[in-house]
Amino acid sequence: MATQNGKVRVAILGASGYTGAELVRILVRHPQVELVLLTADRRAGQSVGEVFPHLGGLGLPDMLSLDQVEWGGLDIGAAFCALPHGTSQAVVAGLLHSVGDSLVDELIAEAPEGLINAAPGGVKVFDLSADFRLKDAEVYREWYGVPHRAAALLPRAVYGLTEFARGPLADADLVACPGCYPTAALLALLPLLQDAVILPYDIIVDAKSGVSGAGRAEKEANLFAEVSEAIHAYGVARHRHAPEIEQSLSVAASEPVTISFTPHLVPMNRGILATTYVRLADGASAGDLRRSLLDCYRGEPFVRVLDEGRVPATRMVRGSNHCVVNVFEDRAPGRAIVLSAIDNLVKGASGQAVQNFNVAFGFAETLGLDGLALFP
Amino acid sequence: MATQNGKVRVAILGASGYTGAELVRILVRHPQVELVLLTADRRAGQSVGEVFPHLGGLGLPDMLSLDQVEWGGLDIGAAFCALPHGTSQAVVAGLLHSVGDSLVDELIAEAPEGLINAAPGGVKVFDLSADFRLKDAEVYREWYGVPHRAAALLPRAVYGLTEFARGPLADADLVACPGCYPTAALLALLPLLQDAVILPYDIIVDAKSGVSGAGRAEKEANLFAEVSEAIHAYGVARHRHAPEIEQSLSVAASEPVTISFTPHLVPMNRGILATTYVRLADGASAGDLRRSLLDCYRGEPFVRVLDEGRVPATRMVRGSNHCVVNVFEDRAPGRAIVLSAIDNLVKGASGQAVQNFNVAFGFAETLGLDGLALFP
Amino acid sequence: MATQNGKVRVAILGASGYTGAELVRILVRHPQVELVLLTADRRAGQSVGEVFPHLGGLGLPDMLSLDQVEWGGLDIGAAFCALPHGTSQAVVAGLLHSVGDSLVDELIAEAPEGLINAAPGGVKVFDLSADFRLKDAEVYREWYGVPHRAAALLPRAVYGLTEFARGPLADADLVACPGCYPTAALLALLPLLQDAVILPYDIIVDAKSGVSGAGRAEKEANLFAEVSEAIHAYGVARHRHAPEIEQSLSVAASEPVTISFTPHLVPMNRGILATTYVRLADGASAGDLRRSLLDCYRGEPFVRVLDEGRVPATRMVRGSNHCVVNVFEDRAPGRAIVLSAIDNLVKGASGQAVQNFNVAFGFAETLGLDGLALFP
Amino acid sequence: MATQNGKVRVAILGASGYTGAELVRILVRHPQVELVLLTADRRAGQSVGEVFPHLGGLGLPDMLSLDQVEWGGLDIGAAFCALPHGTSQAVVAGLLHSVGDSLVDELIAEAPEGLINAAPGGVKVFDLSADFRLKDAEVYREWYGVPHRAAALLPRAVYGLTEFARGPLADADLVACPGCYPTAALLALLPLLQDAVILPYDIIVDAKSGVSGAGRAEKEANLFAEVSEAIHAYGVARHRHAPEIEQSLSVAASEPVTISFTPHLVPMNRGILATTYVRLADGASAGDLRRSLLDCYRGEPFVRVLDEGRVPATRMVRGSNHCVVNVFEDRAPGRAIVLSAIDNLVKGASGQAVQNFNVAFGFAETLGLDGLALFP
Repeated sequence: MATQNGKVRVAILGASGYTGAELVRILVRHPQVELVLLTADRRAGQSVGEVFPHLGGLGLPDMLSLDQVEWGGLDIGAAFCALPHGTSQAVVAGLLHSVGDSLVDELIAEAPEGLINAAPGGVKVFDLSADFRLKDAEVYREWYGVPHRAAALLPRAVYGLTEFARGPLADADLVACPGCYPTAALLALLPLLQDAVILPYDIIVDAKSGVSGAGRAEKEANLFAEVSEAIHAYGVARHRHAPEIEQSLSVAASEPVTISFTPHLVPMNRGILATTYVRLADGASAGDLRRSLLDCYRGEPFVRVLDEGRVPATRMVRGSNHCVVNVFEDRAPGRAIVLSAIDNLVKGASGQAVQNFNVAFGFAETLGLDGLALFP
Repeated sequence: MATQNGKVRVAILGASGYTGAELVRILVRHPQVELVLLTADRRAGQSVGEVFPHLGGLGLPDMLSLDQVEWGGLDIGAAFCALPHGTSQAVVAGLLHSVGDSLVDELIAEAPEGLINAAPGGVKVFDLSADFRLKDAEVYREWYGVPHRAAALLPRAVYGLTEFARGPLADADLVACPGCYPTAALLALLPLLQDAVILPYDIIVDAKSGVSGAGRAEKEANLFAEVSEAIHAYGVARHRHAPEIEQSLSVAASEPVTISFTPHLVPMNRGILATTYVRLADGASAGDLRRSLLDCYRGEPFVRVLDEGRVPATRMVRGSNHCVVNVFEDRAPGRAIVLSAIDNLVKGASGQAVQNFNVAFGFAETLGLDGLALFP
Repeated sequence: MATQNGKVRVAILGASGYTGAELVRILVRHPQVELVLLTADRRAGQSVGEVFPHLGGLGLPDMLSLDQVEWGGLDIGAAFCALPHGTSQAVVAGLLHSVGDSLVDELIAEAPEGLINAAPGGVKVFDLSADFRLKDAEVYREWYGVPHRAAALLPRAVYGLTEFARGPLADADLVACPGCYPTAALLALLPLLQDAVILPYDIIVDAKSGVSGAGRAEKEANLFAEVSEAIHAYGVARHRHAPEIEQSLSVAASEPVTISFTPHLVPMNRGILATTYVRLADGASAGDLRRSLLDCYRGEPFVRVLDEGRVPATRMVRGSNHCVVNVFEDRAPGRAIVLSAIDNLVKGASGQAVQNFNVAFGFAETLGLDGLALFP
Repeated sequence: MATQNGKVRVAILGASGYTGAELVRILVRHPQVELVLLTADRRAGQSVGEVFPHLGGLGLPDMLSLDQVEWGGLDIGAAFCALPHGTSQAVVAGLLHSVGDSLVDELIAEAPEGLINAAPGGVKVFDLSADFRLKDAEVYREWYGVPHRAAALLPRAVYGLTEFARGPLADADLVACPGCYPTAALLALLPLLQDAVILPYDIIVDAKSGVSGAGRAEKEANLFAEVSEAIHAYGVARHRHAPEIEQSLSVAASEPVTISFTPHLVPMNRGILATTYVRLADGASAGDLRRSLLDCYRGEPFVRVLDEGRVPATRMVRGSNHCVVNVFEDRAPGRAIVLSAIDNLVKGASGQAVQNFNVAFGFAETLGLDGLALFP
């Protein structure tokens, strides 16, 4: 694996979006990382300071388009891909080029020229797109509207919800980093289904997200004046994170799970709060649910079960890689409410990607991630 | 009824909070209203412009404490009470003093001196507190922690969700104006239960509110730096609006209804969005729910069922007395999602109070309320 | 002049931006206006409710492109133009087609076909673009980078800062509505220069604006996540409103005035606050400045000089057509600070345009504009 | 000096405000610090997680009142005082108890019992209040309305604008950390006055601050609904940071300097932007000013002069200890505009205090402060 002074040589592909900026922010201070490449097709030729003034003056390499890169001499050990879904497939296939599947071979031919020479010593890919999250290529086609073109790689991808994937992560060379909503929902629900203290149906996830989750695209819907001083739901009953959440819940429940999932846009930059309504298993109480979470997350550096009665809030995790979670008894008999909060750009994206990187490379899991929440 | 040049002489009791300011904003432009009294114990002696600079320069009377008022010569025809719950009871009992119930007599003795002479020609009271919303004094005691002291007045109070109360409002002299969350939830749910297209159980109301709903009290939790850039739930499974919602739902369903209700605080000044998860009645579809709403609200001036697929947003009703509502089929079989949005200070409080005033006095229902939403 | 049941038949050209929406919001409730045409090239064919959900359900005509309009039968009496600067010129020239200037004739040839038949009875144009604000075509060319193509119309245009233009407005058929920053700055400064209580140099206008001033264009710089939780200056020393402010100040001072002008972007939807630093004329005091403002604005319905010591804030005028203004003695000897606040979309754009319309048509000046500020 | 495993034993006095939280956030990750005491009179007995949920779970000591502390065994090496001004004096006098001034002796008698035993090995005090910033006790009395009671300590206090105080800081045991506005203004102005490229009069500082600068006090003026969606000036011509700025400017200019200073409240949590209007010295150009800043700040870890034409924005420094600054030529001849931005809680308060701590203890100046700005 390519390292330099013991540091991993790292590339960030797709560095001009908000998750890209967040990767730079974290990795530039990571003691085991050497940032050697930043790509951004639309901002090719610009300095990091031009694209992200808050990251100027750090001596980082300028942004390149994928086509401009001279891959040959890079010798990278890890690549973080924050490319649009779809685009990700060819690049990842190129980076992991020894696959030998004809479909993937074809994809590799589409990858930027020379890309397959980028990592002579082997590379670990941390993909932040949706391309390798769903295990079933058919489900991908249904929700993303196009066939998956690197289906041969899907079995190889580890779904990187770190707390539940440390074993496979240790040997992984392709990590599909979870979506932001799935991270918030699954950290609240997985222990409860694994411990069978809730029923695997009638699960309702009402999620609220800050605007950075919508990315840096120049869309009317994301303009300040459209978003500020308002809240609305979107993608009602058809958001692409629903099948991703269901995939993991189904494994935990050992049966197919269908959820109600409604995301909302909140006038704040960062943060996701998931309010999840569940039915208690026969004989179980809200206290049992709380114990299940406490047992599961005891000793975890980034997941904190709050004291009884304390309500999770996104301001508790703003800018940090933490998740805070708690359980409340509902007034409606036989029901409980689970609340979980993360920063969508950190634990919900770039922070968790680095957490996965740390596990995959055998570093201390908190390396580069010990920044505390910024409040107010 | 006391009028002047055909105008109703109106008092606002408790005018220094946000609902009070909103009452002034609306009533000062109402063509059939003469504002003759504004009270605010904590701001007694101050001008309206000192308390609310955006309402300065209108030639309104200064704020008085309840004790300072010379009630005798006021000759008011209508009173809007935006007093704290509890306080409201003595004042309302005093205004409607002919009740003849001993408990109420005792209360009247506690009312500000002279108050019983305020309305020799009779008065209609529009109460914005929670004191007369719950029909069962025992439920009031359970949720508000103190006994109700004017229980004899409860049967006389009309619950003023205008669209469902026009008949009783016409003769009412005591109108309990609904809470903000109940208004948003009930406008979404009442038609569906009345038409029996949803089941009367497993109803989950996930509500999101702007900060003005918390009032103008000087609490750390409402400081800008505590609220901005964040979202959190509060009063989980124990918010006082739950029994109020259930009271009306139970009537509509002809059986006791218990709901899950979770309010959230959103970093915006105004607005409530209620995301309500319901189970379809046997044989019913999301389309049937939509038709039920369309039938119910056809011709209504203030409730608008959006075109199919359009998602309600609080920015559509900011500053106006409107409610926008729509229905979506859920992915989970047998379920649907109903979304409704209001401005908590207008349709959720002061606007609806004026709407009730218009109905009670036989004015056109939209009088003083035709302002359109302010966007952006 | 084309009217219907005594109402003026009105067209809004360029109705899909924020100023367009604000014109609709105000004019649809104006008792002397009949809205007969809304154009929006990019949103042609869409309903008002699709473009502006907060304005849906009002029975307004759908948006048309300029080319789709059948101008012949419209018979309009007034046109509000909220078109991009530059585009405005051909349309205005077409509407006022009897000019007889060869350059303008050429322009008219470029106007949408049939436009010249839109107003057989004559039309009054209220232009919200910058095209007719600067009297000197050369200055226009310098600041807007292109030659003015309807220079022959410039002398005919009345600069519509209503409080200072009522005489000319009465007969005007072309009104150049002032920019938002100039409105805020000039209402603070014009009386002081006219009364010669300040010196005509060393005037520094530090202005702060909400984001709606940047329009509804899909630009990265206006995304929520770029603007929220931050403030920055822009257009430092080269904003196009500087020469517009100077033009009016120079007339008032009877000598050329050059100002320092720095606009800032504030994370709020609406509002402009201008903090203006001035030098006192010999012998003048801050009190003299205050008296000058009081004298000038006595009886004005929309400009309010606050009580001594009270600080203007944009929340005092949010959503209303008011300006609040006050003067403070500076610590630095011989200096004073003038603060003025408006809503950039109302008094700074659409509201003032309607105010000018009222004057030009002889209606009461406050017609359609008596809405009070929305707070909180 | 009291250390443990080479770490300095540190107390934070007044830890429940926003600057206190920020000190905890930074110091808990500082490799040379052991946090041994947190005091907060109003929150005595509460855990850090109760007072600041974002800092829960870190194993920190609970908050104590000053009276509850058993000072004797603490053996602290450094104390950060974030107490209200006034209160600070007795505590600081007690900590530095060998002063031998009768007035101070009297003060020490008022200090919490035992406090004088807190630091047997000597202590360095970093005071974040205003109590030791002004060198002239008479100026203090004038602006704070009470006599200074520890005037004997004033000569001993080092004004800790780190970039300009490294020499004195090395030996200091009392550091007066600058106010937030003075930090922003002085970093922009000091080099220019020292290099005499601007004139020492007609300096106008128009400053804009986030709300956290007002602290965590429960005041109506700081409620979300009062601040959101609005901007206003406050303390016009009488803000207490004016004399503090002037004190340093006067030293740099070698003559008394009086400035115009107007602070504004912006609806954001953090950040200060200072827009400073200056007059060029004879023969100087804006380019000379820029060169002066570049020369002064070359190699500085926390002050960054932006590329020519780039406008400083608070979002570039949110959550970081950086200052960004730049100069622009004004349109008005002979003038220039200097823009500077900081995070008021970091470089404007707690971050700079830690920077001073690092210098005073001989640590690398960036220790614990290398976190990059959080954007978006």
